[in-house]
Amino acid sequence: MGALPQEFIRRTVHLSQEATRPYPDSRKVYVVGSCADIRVGMREVMQTSTSLADGEQENPPIPVYDTSGPYTDPTVSIDLLSGLPALRASWIERRDDTDELPGPSSEYGRDRQHDPALSGLRFAHIRNPRRAKTGANVTQMHYARQGLITPEMEYVAIRESMRLEELREDPRYARLLRQHPGMSFGAALPKTITPEFVRSEVARGRAIIPANINHPELEPMVIGRNFRVKVNTNIGNSAVISGIEEEVEKMVWSARWGGDTLMDLSTGKNIHETREWIIRNAPMPIGTVPIYQALEKVGGRAEDLTWGLFRDTLIEQAEQGVDYFTIHAGVRLAYIPYTAERVTGIVSRGGSIMAKWCLAHHQENFLYTHFQEICEIMKAYDVSFSLGDGLRPGSIGDANDRAQFAELETLGELTRTAWQHEVQVMIEGPGHVPMQLIRENMDKELADCLEAPFYTLGPLTTDIAPGYDHITSAIGAAQIGWYGTAMLCYVTPKEHLGLPDKQDVRDGIIAYKIAAHAADLAKGHPGAQLRDNALSKARFEFRWLDQFNLSLDPEKAHEFHDETLPQEGAKLAHFCSMCGPHFCSMKITQEVRDFAKAQGLPEQEALRKGMEQKAVEFVKQGAEVYRRT
Amino acid sequence: MGALPQEFIRRTVHLSQEATRPYPDSRKVYVVGSCADIRVGMREVMQTSTSLADGEQENPPIPVYDTSGPYTDPTVSIDLLSGLPALRASWIERRDDTDELPGPSSEYGRDRQHDPALSGLRFAHIRNPRRAKTGANVTQMHYARQGLITPEMEYVAIRESMRLEELREDPRYARLLRQHPGMSFGAALPKTITPEFVRSEVARGRAIIPANINHPELEPMVIGRNFRVKVNTNIGNSAVISGIEEEVEKMVWSARWGGDTLMDLSTGKNIHETREWIIRNAPMPIGTVPIYQALEKVGGRAEDLTWGLFRDTLIEQAEQGVDYFTIHAGVRLAYIPYTAERVTGIVSRGGSIMAKWCLAHHQENFLYTHFQEICEIMKAYDVSFSLGDGLRPGSIGDANDRAQFAELETLGELTRTAWQHEVQVMIEGPGHVPMQLIRENMDKELADCLEAPFYTLGPLTTDIAPGYDHITSAIGAAQIGWYGTAMLCYVTPKEHLGLPDKQDVRDGIIAYKIAAHAADLAKGHPGAQLRDNALSKARFEFRWLDQFNLSLDPEKAHEFHDETLPQEGAKLAHFCSMCGPHFCSMKITQEVRDFAKAQGLPEQEALRKGMEQKAVEFVKQGAEVYRRT
Repeated sequence: MGALPQEFIRRTVHLSQEATRPYPDSRKVYVVGSCADIRVGMREVMQTSTSLADGEQENPPIPVYDTSGPYTDPTVSIDLLSGLPALRASWIERRDDTDELPGPSSEYGRDRQHDPALSGLRFAHIRNPRRAKTGANVTQMHYARQGLITPEMEYVAIRESMRLEELREDPRYARLLRQHPGMSFGAALPKTITPEFVRSEVARGRAIIPANINHPELEPMVIGRNFRVKVNTNIGNSAVISGIEEEVEKMVWSARWGGDTLMDLSTGKNIHETREWIIRNAPMPIGTVPIYQALEKVGGRAEDLTWGLFRDTLIEQAEQGVDYFTIHAGVRLAYIPYTAERVTGIVSRGGSIMAKWCLAHHQENFLYTHFQEICEIMKAYDVSFSLGDGLRPGSIGDANDRAQFAELETLGELTRTAWQHEVQVMIEGPGHVPMQLIRENMDKELADCLEAPFYTLGPLTTDIAPGYDHITSAIGAAQIGWYGTAMLCYVTPKEHLGLPDKQDVRDGIIAYKIAAHAADLAKGHPGAQLRDNALSKARFEFRWLDQFNLSLDPEKAHEFHDETLPQEGAKLAHFCSMCGPHFCSMKITQEVRDFAKAQGLPEQEALRKGMEQKAVEFVKQGAEVYRRT
Repeated sequence: MGALPQEFIRRTVHLSQEATRPYPDSRKVYVVGSCADIRVGMREVMQTSTSLADGEQENPPIPVYDTSGPYTDPTVSIDLLSGLPALRASWIERRDDTDELPGPSSEYGRDRQHDPALSGLRFAHIRNPRRAKTGANVTQMHYARQGLITPEMEYVAIRESMRLEELREDPRYARLLRQHPGMSFGAALPKTITPEFVRSEVARGRAIIPANINHPELEPMVIGRNFRVKVNTNIGNSAVISGIEEEVEKMVWSARWGGDTLMDLSTGKNIHETREWIIRNAPMPIGTVPIYQALEKVGGRAEDLTWGLFRDTLIEQAEQGVDYFTIHAGVRLAYIPYTAERVTGIVSRGGSIMAKWCLAHHQENFLYTHFQEICEIMKAYDVSFSLGDGLRPGSIGDANDRAQFAELETLGELTRTAWQHEVQVMIEGPGHVPMQLIRENMDKELADCLEAPFYTLGPLTTDIAPGYDHITSAIGAAQIGWYGTAMLCYVTPKEHLGLPDKQDVRDGIIAYKIAAHAADLAKGHPGAQLRDNALSKARFEFRWLDQFNLSLDPEKAHEFHDETLPQEGAKLAHFCSMCGPHFCSMKITQEVRDFAKAQGLPEQEALRKGMEQKAVEFVKQGAEVYRRT
């Protein structure tokens, strides 16, 4: 710590208040698993009660999935200089299948560690990396196939379940848990998510838990079509704009708004040091595209890339704790000419780098030819594959073409190879695809890649709205999520135009949380409708603050309401800002309820729906809402 | 004009510069039909040329559908005090089936005309209203069923076609017109839109041309599933916020960003005068919900509404030139109790007013019982029905319930009745619907309402994102548009929270233009992909300004690019703002093209795709792009 100049410390130790302030009227709760050190954080949104003629009706707290880690827990003191607590350290140690190394084993990692010029930038508390003992395989898939339920699996089972079993027994939630049947296109959503179900999904490759043994700070999460749809966010400096502290703040910012995983796509200088700061403070899995850094190491000349240099980069990053690598091993030499006729050629950076290398050498992609060796590295640290779609379409015109689908078939072949090594795999997907061609992408991925989790960028459903591509793509993302995609890579409004700032990141994440949640609802994910029901009930009862607090972005909702009705009293008003106090459809509805009740109709309806008696009692009470007004 | 106080004139005659400035590098063109007075405005986006080794390759202008009317034509001088030119006046006169009345025939219209207190607010150049001669029917549907192709029908045929036939003959467009096959769920999209096709669609009720004879300023447009998907916007003051000039500016603002029709939902004072100003200056069809004004007239007491008063309001508004009326005639007494068990009861304002009336009187909805008389009024002015969904779901939980579908069936029955009168009809739809239930809405509407155009609000696909409901609903809107909805009613980010300001209106419209265009692409609307292809080609060739100009919001795209690379030179740069000058996938792609060409592969591919020789020549030239870089 002494090595850090004071100036740098001042600049980085304080995250912004806007990135860390607690969510309004929420509390962080922890559900403890089978061991005391399995403590799964989630957020509970508190609600005010509803005024009835004969007293107050309690509205129970609503649990929501929480990606923000310790940053929003007011009882945890954050020290970016030390990093987050190593939540998983004891789990990893208990397995006794890893060695602590004396220091980085990559050449590059050693060079950077001993470069005195970097002492001011370097994270001070670097612990020694771990690696699988010789011959051992430390992947979650390996354990799963052995029949072992790891703490990571139990953690994600609790995290996904969100106390649903408990809520089902609690009459306060009876009406709130009502949900439309889903349509899941062949997904196998269980009624209850158990640790054993997680294990079986990981074992068959239908889900992954990206969790490098060198990222013990991680709060494990799962990516698979039978779990909640996840959202990936990207950050990264570039030759144009850069800054370590900015990137760490963005990581926390991304976690706050709901990013489930985060890719560090930096291409500028000090990538290595930036990454260390990010990982040590990251509660979410971190992904990278190692070829970007490899290219930096050869001065940007793709033709100078070598397997040896790339291999060293993989080890360097694996020992820092990167949880998943995008590897463009499917960009085969033979497929490259298929892109010549495209409207927009090759738009993936990784894809174009590999294409350039292949053309320069007239040789097969070295990521493809060395794939087995890559697997050996992945399984020594449990880095998951994110098999890159280097030939994804960059325009509507290029969607679903021969280049794209040839690569996808190769990704299926590589998935089989990785699974032979028991290495976890997800598959990257497009891109730009008009709506009528989205389903084919999903179906082909499921078939070719044997249901390995699909992880798509959008897709953007039209090319004509630069500046609004979070929307063009949220439309496609919601659909492909519904069809079976496990994780959606967010797109910000700045896509195609520039680098996103904090507001763009927030806008992009919220658009994608909407898409992911819309997909969960459509698939019929158990409990998914709870938050909608609770928010809508609050809305109907003019519990404004509860409505804001239950929303994906409480601050924005509150701020928008303030623009029309800034008075504090308006938050308690029994009318809405659209129609004013004298003209309110919701107020009129109460009269309908009274009328219907007078005719005995609610009970009839209730019986017709086969509701249990408790719920009927609840309804009777509910029908009293606002009788006094 | 002398009656207008100077202060008011100053405040209103000048529309803001931001609402009226011409689009960048665009020109307004007019396509003339069979008569000289059928002049259809559209916009052409000019493009710069592409630099080739052996010269310049021309990129042709791209025609885009233009809703902005004369406001963006620099050769037209706008005078809000006089209103727009009466484009349709001679068409209406030539038909010789209407009488010019000596003045308003509604009681309310006469009262307002003679109230001296309103002289400062009143539009000065009010012309006398027209009405069908006794026994005549002046609806477009009536003419269509007579086999007549009206100028309005020819106008919309030209407008929808966008010169596509001509472009198909022009080799510069050969590659740009390539398009994926659509998936249209039973729509009957013609390869070419002819006036006769428009007539036949209007005759069978599958499309409407909302065009009141008292709105001769209108540029006709068509709403139907076999035409481009349209976007409706809403404006309106309320008890909370108001202002005439603000509303006129919003109307022009809405037209600028792409609103195809506009509903004036005002509920405050001076509704009548505000409406006159809007209609006289509106190039798009204007819709209203007459029950809102009727309620104002009885001091907000729904139970005091009467058929006589409502009838007078219909005539008042029809004589001002309102093109479509939302009429909540499907909220039948018997359906009202079905809403008692809902999470959010009745959320439609019109629906709740009618429900309250029905309950207060224990009588059937007077809009239902007087429906034949309403049809008589509609056909005397050619006002189209927008049959309101007063029982639409206001939350995910309430989607597709008995109340909603009972009303929809009644709307089908009313459609039959209206068609017996040869009155044009569209059907309003939800609301809040999770994705898996959207398709059922569309299918049921097509079946119950005999393919009358569906006009939906969203639907919102989740309730949990207040502040972002333009996105939650654009996701649903794109899907239902794809399935067959003809017009999408926009939702702004302020939905549920407050009244939209100009920025919200712009955000809402662009989100909906995206949804509508995504739907056109997915259905395979002829020529829909042209703009995507042109924009993507510009993007790939680093023609930054062309990319901005072709986008739905050129100003926003330009502004976002400026945030990262503000220098003017960057607009000509052969790299993008994401990767910087030394690391660009698009640059690398050119090498792929050269390689593929060396192998003779483009030609093979081209032949495989059955391209004609001209296109092949074009490709060969295209392959030279950037050879010099």
